[in-house]
Amino acid sequence: MWTQHHLTLPPQRRGFHLITREVVAAVPELAKVRVGLLHVWIQHTSASLTVNENASPDVRRDFERYFNHAVPDGWPAFEHTLEGRDDMPAHIKASVLGPSLTLPVSAGRLALGTWQGIYLCEHRDDGGARRLVLTLQGEVGG
Amino acid sequence: MWTQHHLTLPPQRRGFHLITREVVAAVPELAKVRVGLLHVWIQHTSASLTVNENASPDVRRDFERYFNHAVPDGWPAFEHTLEGRDDMPAHIKASVLGPSLTLPVSAGRLALGTWQGIYLCEHRDDGGARRLVLTLQGEVGG
Amino acid sequence: MWTQHHLTLPPQRRGFHLITREVVAAVPELAKVRVGLLHVWIQHTSASLTVNENASPDVRRDFERYFNHAVPDGWPAFEHTLEGRDDMPAHIKASVLGPSLTLPVSAGRLALGTWQGIYLCEHRDDGGARRLVLTLQGEVGG
Repeated sequence: MWTQHHLTLPPQRRGFHLITREVVAAVPELAKVRVGLLHVWIQHTSASLTVNENASPDVRRDFERYFNHAVPDGWPAFEHTLEGRDDMPAHIKASVLGPSLTLPVSAGRLALGTWQGIYLCEHRDDGGARRLVLTLQGEVGG
Repeated sequence: MWTQHHLTLPPQRRGFHLITREVVAAVPELAKVRVGLLHVWIQHTSASLTVNENASPDVRRDFERYFNHAVPDGWPAFEHTLEGRDDMPAHIKASVLGPSLTLPVSAGRLALGTWQGIYLCEHRDDGGARRLVLTLQGEVGG
Repeated sequence: MWTQHHLTLPPQRRGFHLITREVVAAVPELAKVRVGLLHVWIQHTSASLTVNENASPDVRRDFERYFNHAVPDGWPAFEHTLEGRDDMPAHIKASVLGPSLTLPVSAGRLALGTWQGIYLCEHRDDGGARRLVLTLQGEVGG
């Protein structure tokens, strides 16, 4: 079984945001898949996707603190400055964290660990809405 | 063909560890797959998976040195400190390296390069056992 | 449908290079896939793959500047120095950016965003030719 959905996330402020619920809700066929994979793709180069701790909001704030330190806005060596001080850092963070996730599916559910949640990583100050492509494949059965 | 296995790795000390052999041994159906993909998922947020040089143990020690430098234990700006000085760095390293691998399969074997091996990246001092979900799909034939 | 191709990219100078066109051309069956995924694997541990901005060459130059700063050649703490000052940094950059991409396919085309392109990230001064394994799967139809 193959199915593909598009999901547009409303604009979020710069930072790391839990979107597990939104992703799962956008793929109702997930419930029918015995064994499979869900692929999530973000169609942008200044936002990204990762999986990390789903309980403590302070973890997500520390992600933002750390990545702002590791890839500083307005880093003087950047040549590509035309689109703003946060643009080139956003591109780099997006590639470090990555544009996609492939998630295991078991018995109609994502086979994530207890503490794992999907993050939208918004790297721009005004990133706007973000489009995801969700591709589900697997063996149907019960 | 779809198949899914669980693999629990025994506790490893903090650092980077070759696990290619353990992963391949846990998926005996690999030998029957003509063309396919093996997906490996770690169900934790403070350990990760990568592929890198499979020959020199000094490369794996340098990974540990580098990442400890890039994301220092007890970094003063971290807010999430309740679970120890190595916890928040472990979360960040886990997202930088990533929770999964998708590996090509050709003629019953992983189609890795000569020097490529699978690493378990243990980012915590006492991470305990780590659970992997292995999902194999592909075309059976010979 | 499953198909697998090998693609050897000629030697490129150290840096970030757009290869979307070469990848798509190497998988002619892409045009027949209604919904699917294209997996791209690099069989090396000192070069990597990412997706980022496909328009401005200065973005790709800034990637090179940033990663050279974040993982410096000849970093004194490295133990694995036998293969040159750029070798160990290349291994680390390769794992940070990653050895593979999984790309969504819709209606016979890669479902990338407007500004997304595939980068070969060549982390060595003299990396030589680079081998990719391209695995396409999906539902055929129109």
